[in-house]
Amino acid sequence: MPQDALIELQTPCLVLDRSKLRRNISSLQQKLATLGVTLRPHGKTAKSIDVMRLALQGQAGGVTVSTLKEAEYYFENGIVDLIYAVGVAPNKLPRIAALIHRGAQISLILDSLEQAKMVANHGREQGLTFSVLIEIDCDGHRSGLSIDDPALLLVARYLHQAQGVRLGGVLTHAGGSYSCTSTKQIANFALQERDAAVSAAATLRAADLPCDVVSIGSTPTATFAEDLRGVTEVRAGVFMFQDLVMVGLGVCEASDVAMSVLTSVIGHQKERGFIISDAGWMALSRDRGTASQVLDQGYGLVCNAAGEAQNDLIVSAANQEHGMISSRSGQAITWEKYPIGTLLRILPNHACATSAMFERYFVVDGCAQIADVWPRINGW
Amino acid sequence: MPQDALIELQTPCLVLDRSKLRRNISSLQQKLATLGVTLRPHGKTAKSIDVMRLALQGQAGGVTVSTLKEAEYYFENGIVDLIYAVGVAPNKLPRIAALIHRGAQISLILDSLEQAKMVANHGREQGLTFSVLIEIDCDGHRSGLSIDDPALLLVARYLHQAQGVRLGGVLTHAGGSYSCTSTKQIANFALQERDAAVSAAATLRAADLPCDVVSIGSTPTATFAEDLRGVTEVRAGVFMFQDLVMVGLGVCEASDVAMSVLTSVIGHQKERGFIISDAGWMALSRDRGTASQVLDQGYGLVCNAAGEAQNDLIVSAANQEHGMISSRSGQAITWEKYPIGTLLRILPNHACATSAMFERYFVVDGCAQIADVWPRINGW
Repeated sequence: MPQDALIELQTPCLVLDRSKLRRNISSLQQKLATLGVTLRPHGKTAKSIDVMRLALQGQAGGVTVSTLKEAEYYFENGIVDLIYAVGVAPNKLPRIAALIHRGAQISLILDSLEQAKMVANHGREQGLTFSVLIEIDCDGHRSGLSIDDPALLLVARYLHQAQGVRLGGVLTHAGGSYSCTSTKQIANFALQERDAAVSAAATLRAADLPCDVVSIGSTPTATFAEDLRGVTEVRAGVFMFQDLVMVGLGVCEASDVAMSVLTSVIGHQKERGFIISDAGWMALSRDRGTASQVLDQGYGLVCNAAGEAQNDLIVSAANQEHGMISSRSGQAITWEKYPIGTLLRILPNHACATSAMFERYFVVDGCAQIADVWPRINGW
Repeated sequence: MPQDALIELQTPCLVLDRSKLRRNISSLQQKLATLGVTLRPHGKTAKSIDVMRLALQGQAGGVTVSTLKEAEYYFENGIVDLIYAVGVAPNKLPRIAALIHRGAQISLILDSLEQAKMVANHGREQGLTFSVLIEIDCDGHRSGLSIDDPALLLVARYLHQAQGVRLGGVLTHAGGSYSCTSTKQIANFALQERDAAVSAAATLRAADLPCDVVSIGSTPTATFAEDLRGVTEVRAGVFMFQDLVMVGLGVCEASDVAMSVLTSVIGHQKERGFIISDAGWMALSRDRGTASQVLDQGYGLVCNAAGEAQNDLIVSAANQEHGMISSRSGQAITWEKYPIGTLLRILPNHACATSAMFERYFVVDGCAQIADVWPRINGW
């Protein structure tokens, strides 16, 4: 009985289905292998060495991180090759230097001469050489230099010539792919992402500058990329867990989502047509990533303890420790199916945001029993 | 120099201005004292014993909690009198019983006969008596029994007569007050909240049932209540820190907000008119509570390191570790004021949600120096 496996847990808590996790990882690894490109999994979603060990299985290589706490944590757990993929601030450099002194091979990213000079100065002060990737903007959604920005060669030349820094290559991220409305559009975004990175690399090489690393990636573009020639590695994180935003993008099915929030029914408001559960926004996060998609999933899609979707029940509203569950289409709720204490599992909009609300994963294999408990880290 | 006080911190991190915290606490305490009602501060915002000690100064009494982890934490730090103000689930009862066995005076809340019977059964099994408040719905926003629901007396009679439970009183929360558009409307909501609780208490007493506790509260209604006769205590949490949602409601000014996220500038996108900082939604939370108010503050209002608002700069978009800062009105940014590494402080939409992203507070007194570091708890 599935509920038996989970009945001893305090709600809300985070359940991770390892069988789905393995399938998701294997699927993207195989896809990228056929395109001849290495996967550098992003550690920002799972923030768990146990998950990342599965994601690295069968391949050499390192991981991507979004915080230095992740970098330190993964390094202390044996992962030496790291890219810190957020534009560097000067107050981060001493921690990065400390990691390098301890043996980490960590690359940082930047997109201005101002940053390059700060990094080089700190490298010289510390008597070390920071490996630097230049961030390229491929879709105007956030940071990076445009490929036609004259600063690209200025920064690259500086990094190549200055002491304290080494030019490692280029990196881009098609974050704009999250707004696509068709898988064809995502495939085009993947081309655009690749072209931006490969073109920036060509610009550098044409100027006799080195560009060993040509790093791209996002879960949507990695999933639908058709040709990655010229790219040396793909970064992605969400694909391991998948989530409802990815379902909405056509990246996966709801049955692929490996992560869910276990919650208990704590009340019924029959006249107003909602069940109250103990997974509010503190458990689900405030992420409303599906609000702008065709199918708005509220704060999450409601499944029973076995992980089966319950008609069109969603968490339609959330307070700190209360989740209001109602039918998206206004169908009557079969109240007797959900007595007080019933365990439900909520599939999240956004795996990175929801998992960040928890300190550990309760690992199941298709829900037969709690197979393991995996800690995760949060903070900076 | 204010920035000197904060320059040694890793960004993003959470800064708490103790002078503002003290002023906010003192202000609501004085207000409630004039109305003759006790404040039972809600521990769900700060999740910090250091903050709650300040909030309890000058008065006897206990606290409110939203999770059993808070209850255990505050109890272990010497606070015995607790209300767990979220409708109880059966899997929570063993932990509540354990607290009672250790000496806690903890009340729980419920709004159905089904729950009352579960609680009583567990109390008898454990050989103890659970103190129970009946949750009243005063505004239709979430949980609780309406005052005219026949179940109110059914549940009350059951709690009074059954072994294993004791009827402590009634509790309500005007969560709907967060949607008010004027302070006059909030004052009316405060009357409505009081009237619901007092009327439910009268119903119980008219049936010869005890009702010692008549508990109401929310930060907006507590701030604008004009008459709380019949109420025994007011619960509120956000008032200690205040936040931009409270500014939008007229509860406070932006200069009263005691909590901010310290962040570093990590990039400039001059053509697109935004500064990039290292406080993304992982630091600020995904809360967009001001989106439905007259003045949408994005993901937060941007101040300099001294806490002074920077014209109309807000965090207009957020990725996991990137906050995009732009001018609400589209004014040109004075780029030279914000070189890479500049420290900024972001006032949050919602104090509960933003503080939950952090493990500690860096305490300042008007920003002269880091006066203390206070841990906070998260999770369940």
